[in-house]
Amino acid sequence: MIDLRSDTVTKPTAKMIKAMAEARVGDDVFGEDPTVNNLEEKVADLFGFDAGLFVPSGTMSNQLSINVLTAPGDEVLIEKTGHIFNYESAGAAHLSSVQLHPVRGHQGKLLPHLLEDKVRGTNDWDPNTTVIALENSTNKGGGCCYSEDELKAIKSFATEHQLKVHLDGARIWNAMTATDTEAAFFGSIADTMSVCFSKGLGAPVGSMMLSSEANIKQARRMRKMWGGGMRQVGLLAAAADYAIEEHWPLMKEDHRRARELATLIRQCHGLEIDLESVETNILIFDVLNESADSAIKRLHQEGVQLVPFGPNTLRATFHFQVTDEDLERVVEAFKKCFG
Amino acid sequence: MIDLRSDTVTKPTAKMIKAMAEARVGDDVFGEDPTVNNLEEKVADLFGFDAGLFVPSGTMSNQLSINVLTAPGDEVLIEKTGHIFNYESAGAAHLSSVQLHPVRGHQGKLLPHLLEDKVRGTNDWDPNTTVIALENSTNKGGGCCYSEDELKAIKSFATEHQLKVHLDGARIWNAMTATDTEAAFFGSIADTMSVCFSKGLGAPVGSMMLSSEANIKQARRMRKMWGGGMRQVGLLAAAADYAIEEHWPLMKEDHRRARELATLIRQCHGLEIDLESVETNILIFDVLNESADSAIKRLHQEGVQLVPFGPNTLRATFHFQVTDEDLERVVEAFKKCFG
Amino acid sequence: MIDLRSDTVTKPTAKMIKAMAEARVGDDVFGEDPTVNNLEEKVADLFGFDAGLFVPSGTMSNQLSINVLTAPGDEVLIEKTGHIFNYESAGAAHLSSVQLHPVRGHQGKLLPHLLEDKVRGTNDWDPNTTVIALENSTNKGGGCCYSEDELKAIKSFATEHQLKVHLDGARIWNAMTATDTEAAFFGSIADTMSVCFSKGLGAPVGSMMLSSEANIKQARRMRKMWGGGMRQVGLLAAAADYAIEEHWPLMKEDHRRARELATLIRQCHGLEIDLESVETNILIFDVLNESADSAIKRLHQEGVQLVPFGPNTLRATFHFQVTDEDLERVVEAFKKCFG
Amino acid sequence: MIDLRSDTVTKPTAKMIKAMAEARVGDDVFGEDPTVNNLEEKVADLFGFDAGLFVPSGTMSNQLSINVLTAPGDEVLIEKTGHIFNYESAGAAHLSSVQLHPVRGHQGKLLPHLLEDKVRGTNDWDPNTTVIALENSTNKGGGCCYSEDELKAIKSFATEHQLKVHLDGARIWNAMTATDTEAAFFGSIADTMSVCFSKGLGAPVGSMMLSSEANIKQARRMRKMWGGGMRQVGLLAAAADYAIEEHWPLMKEDHRRARELATLIRQCHGLEIDLESVETNILIFDVLNESADSAIKRLHQEGVQLVPFGPNTLRATFHFQVTDEDLERVVEAFKKCFG
Repeated sequence: MIDLRSDTVTKPTAKMIKAMAEARVGDDVFGEDPTVNNLEEKVADLFGFDAGLFVPSGTMSNQLSINVLTAPGDEVLIEKTGHIFNYESAGAAHLSSVQLHPVRGHQGKLLPHLLEDKVRGTNDWDPNTTVIALENSTNKGGGCCYSEDELKAIKSFATEHQLKVHLDGARIWNAMTATDTEAAFFGSIADTMSVCFSKGLGAPVGSMMLSSEANIKQARRMRKMWGGGMRQVGLLAAAADYAIEEHWPLMKEDHRRARELATLIRQCHGLEIDLESVETNILIFDVLNESADSAIKRLHQEGVQLVPFGPNTLRATFHFQVTDEDLERVVEAFKKCFG
Repeated sequence: MIDLRSDTVTKPTAKMIKAMAEARVGDDVFGEDPTVNNLEEKVADLFGFDAGLFVPSGTMSNQLSINVLTAPGDEVLIEKTGHIFNYESAGAAHLSSVQLHPVRGHQGKLLPHLLEDKVRGTNDWDPNTTVIALENSTNKGGGCCYSEDELKAIKSFATEHQLKVHLDGARIWNAMTATDTEAAFFGSIADTMSVCFSKGLGAPVGSMMLSSEANIKQARRMRKMWGGGMRQVGLLAAAADYAIEEHWPLMKEDHRRARELATLIRQCHGLEIDLESVETNILIFDVLNESADSAIKRLHQEGVQLVPFGPNTLRATFHFQVTDEDLERVVEAFKKCFG
Repeated sequence: MIDLRSDTVTKPTAKMIKAMAEARVGDDVFGEDPTVNNLEEKVADLFGFDAGLFVPSGTMSNQLSINVLTAPGDEVLIEKTGHIFNYESAGAAHLSSVQLHPVRGHQGKLLPHLLEDKVRGTNDWDPNTTVIALENSTNKGGGCCYSEDELKAIKSFATEHQLKVHLDGARIWNAMTATDTEAAFFGSIADTMSVCFSKGLGAPVGSMMLSSEANIKQARRMRKMWGGGMRQVGLLAAAADYAIEEHWPLMKEDHRRARELATLIRQCHGLEIDLESVETNILIFDVLNESADSAIKRLHQEGVQLVPFGPNTLRATFHFQVTDEDLERVVEAFKKCFG
Repeated sequence: MIDLRSDTVTKPTAKMIKAMAEARVGDDVFGEDPTVNNLEEKVADLFGFDAGLFVPSGTMSNQLSINVLTAPGDEVLIEKTGHIFNYESAGAAHLSSVQLHPVRGHQGKLLPHLLEDKVRGTNDWDPNTTVIALENSTNKGGGCCYSEDELKAIKSFATEHQLKVHLDGARIWNAMTATDTEAAFFGSIADTMSVCFSKGLGAPVGSMMLSSEANIKQARRMRKMWGGGMRQVGLLAAAADYAIEEHWPLMKEDHRRARELATLIRQCHGLEIDLESVETNILIFDVLNESADSAIKRLHQEGVQLVPFGPNTLRATFHFQVTDEDLERVVEAFKKCFG
């Protein structure tokens, strides 16, 4: 069975486990885990931020970011397919008392002209717009990436309207691979950023929030309150560090494989895909003559797992544990089902 | 100066004050105000609900309704121009930890086909859709009203998907006047309802939440917590009661005047209005050759006050304290500005 | 039936209603009610604050004060009998995400030496102490009042530990009457203050929050969100204004009557009272040979209503609508029951 | 340097790492990690509950428990030295909108007679008491344990007053070791329970919440919302499982060492300890002639680390990585400092 459901399903390799076993650890709640401290400094430096905070999940780094950037009653502009609006259990309302304002963009991306008439907060009864939340690459948007110019335009719009920018970089590693953007560039665009080690990068657990010293200090307190303070968590940080060094370089192959499958899907009967949208490791495509569930069931019988992304929409995701051989078997399955 | 900014600006009449002066009052926090108790029973009966709760504002009755119908992490479907999404300071997030999911409808109204793909809550990461929030008549939708068939269709959809229905009836009095719907019909459609006494009805302060006994009991507790418990508030309830009896019948005249102004606006240079949308006491129209602010300034110089409802959009609102003579002066002002 | 249950049960007098009828009103949500605006300015001036905010209840002014002084995760020190800990439905947790830290004081009052080891917030896991909440006069503490020196000592302690002070002055009018403290003194002690018009002062509805311009601006927004924004509420403000002018001077008589009853209770069989604690309009006393409920039932049969304040404890409260004649009847009832 | 600051500072052993390396893992957010699933079932069975939920910290399992047992505005009775009131950043207010009601007990333990007059919730303004939160063994209470009879008495009181019981069993392994209580007994006492693997048990990260199927289902959703959903977390579950099997049996030695140090402290100049309170691996003792900070500094110079637990109070904690040789050095240090 070849699992294309998500890039979260990778399993730690023997070498990664070895790196974990050799890690020096301490009690991170007391700030005494050297492996965590090193990783926080390393990743913050990489992306051009002052400080970082290791957390158990991308949801926590997104939610902590929203929390430190807002006050109760604030409103956050977000593309309507964004992760925070769709896959975080309405947590922004619960954890930060903020309203999400979903805006229809293109391929999951927001651009300034879409936001012009959305900023509000003059009166006591207005939600008070204070943050723009971006996702790069976009998950439900099909793995598309912002160009540097697009990000600069958003940043400029945000500055003009005194808004903060949060960047959900769950798959920023894929975005950098696809667009050749320098990591440090993102520190000039975003006030807070979330990066994930447990998606295509292949670490078992963990994400990191990046921001200023003051924001990270406040987030560290909220992390403890929400139950995200962990003890000898250097074990997990060591795996994340290994993943950055050893797995990040492999992503261009994931993207190549994704594109190969997309090209095939273009030729299949009863499937429709926008080839231009396949920029990274994610494919989102439609089934024309049956439901998503039916197509998934048929592919499953051929040994391939996908997830539905709408009544007639499927998602396939690549990561370094889907090999070229696996791809061949996936291609066979698609040919058999939609040939 | 003729004030068409809102139907909230009416002032209590001498007769209304007399009704207040004669009211028997008690400490309503102890449940001992007979005028409040009578009004709660009367309005609940009128609309076909078990119980009512007098509150200081329509925002409180909307928010209490959302609160009793939801749990933290729930999602509420609402038309994107709805009051709760736009004019309640993001309170649903703060007071009930729920996410609002704005959906584009027509004239502020939701219909079942718009909601088919919006209901979610299968996984731990999904927001959990539990409520549809309607507004009748619609404020930002231009005072449009739901037909009985439309409401029945929504109710049927809600039942099928195990959703609750909240009805923001801030201007239900106008809607009933325009559509000849029986008040008791709404009790068969909505799980919770909010009605307002201080808009076109002309009471100085107050709204009422309507629902089942159990929901009102819980709302009464939350009202106390949020600071909405008032003492000898029978004074305000007496004004509301007077308004139902004496001002409600006047609304058809407000609607006639609104329509007369709309017909004029249709003929004005540089103004555009959809006559079909003028069903009640609200007119929403566009200015073509200048900004909303500029048009408002020019009308103000002619003695007429309006509010902007977008960069090039204005709202005018009628209520019983705008007389036929006032209308004549308004007509003159529009002719002078846009003739 | 003579009602000594609470000073909230007063009913508006004919003269008060007349003052209401003559009030100039406007839409206070738009900031256009002259009677509200005047009262906010007048009361703020009186107590030495920059600005005031009229709200529907003392609970709302207390909770808004806590809200503007704290952030989620903060801790508020409060005497364990304090109103906010006991009679506000746990609202501070819900509305402001703060933890109340109840401290045992004397007669409902906190003094610095009781707080020395309570201030905390060094680590991420500590609740973060930021506010001391006082009540003056104390309700459950038996109507006792802080001396100016006590308040100065608290203020000095607060400043030293970088804490804010909130003063719940629901019965500050009684406290000022009893201690001859200048109203403006409180503005030098408290960062936020709540004063109530609907207890002994006798207005039907309403309290006011007092603080800096910035805090009141933020509280005004939260008041709208919580549903406390009211329209032509100048009617209620006029009643409150009348009450300050006409009823406040009557309080010394209430205190005299309370003391007369206390002296009698001292002599009754089966009753115990600490005469020193009777400083204002509240008496708290114990019944020795029966339950509070039993004593209340017996007094009720003699035409006097009281409330239980513990299994063997009763509270009696005086206000200007309990006259000397009423007091005579109360005395008779006590003599009959405990003579 | 011998670290007696906390039993959270243990580091994973080579054998534990080996167990982690050999674990079968999967994506636990999809419920597909066999090692996590097995551990949840095993620990739930052990303690007599229906289901378990692996979480990153004891704070999260405590807070999830409070969350599923309460509604906003509820009140939780807790001993005033309890972890949830003192070391969880006021999270119960933020995450569940509940008020903690601290009650003075003995050695950190609550007994029914202390709670008799604390249960409330009759009126809209009362906080609504719904939960009793216990800690066993008690941390700030000096590691003391409830007897089975005490727990049965609490349970009986809770049932009578329709209250739920939460048991913070962060150190339940120590409590069971000291009192010979069967693990399954706790399932008959508590509605929710939290057990920790990363304190004396010595796993690097992780706790578990135990309760009914329905409560765990709801907690699983909230865990995702709060950011506690982790992917291939079977690695950590394997360490926890190893710790139960291999480290739990070692605890009686920790308790013996704690008692030996306590006996010495009894004889030291300037130190005071209640020997009866030393039931498990924690010692809390007072310094008479200097501050806690001063004593800690002097011991630090002799190679022993402790933490302050009050201005003149210290805590020492034992775990399996403090050996008999370490104890000898600790004894020398104490003799030198207080001999």
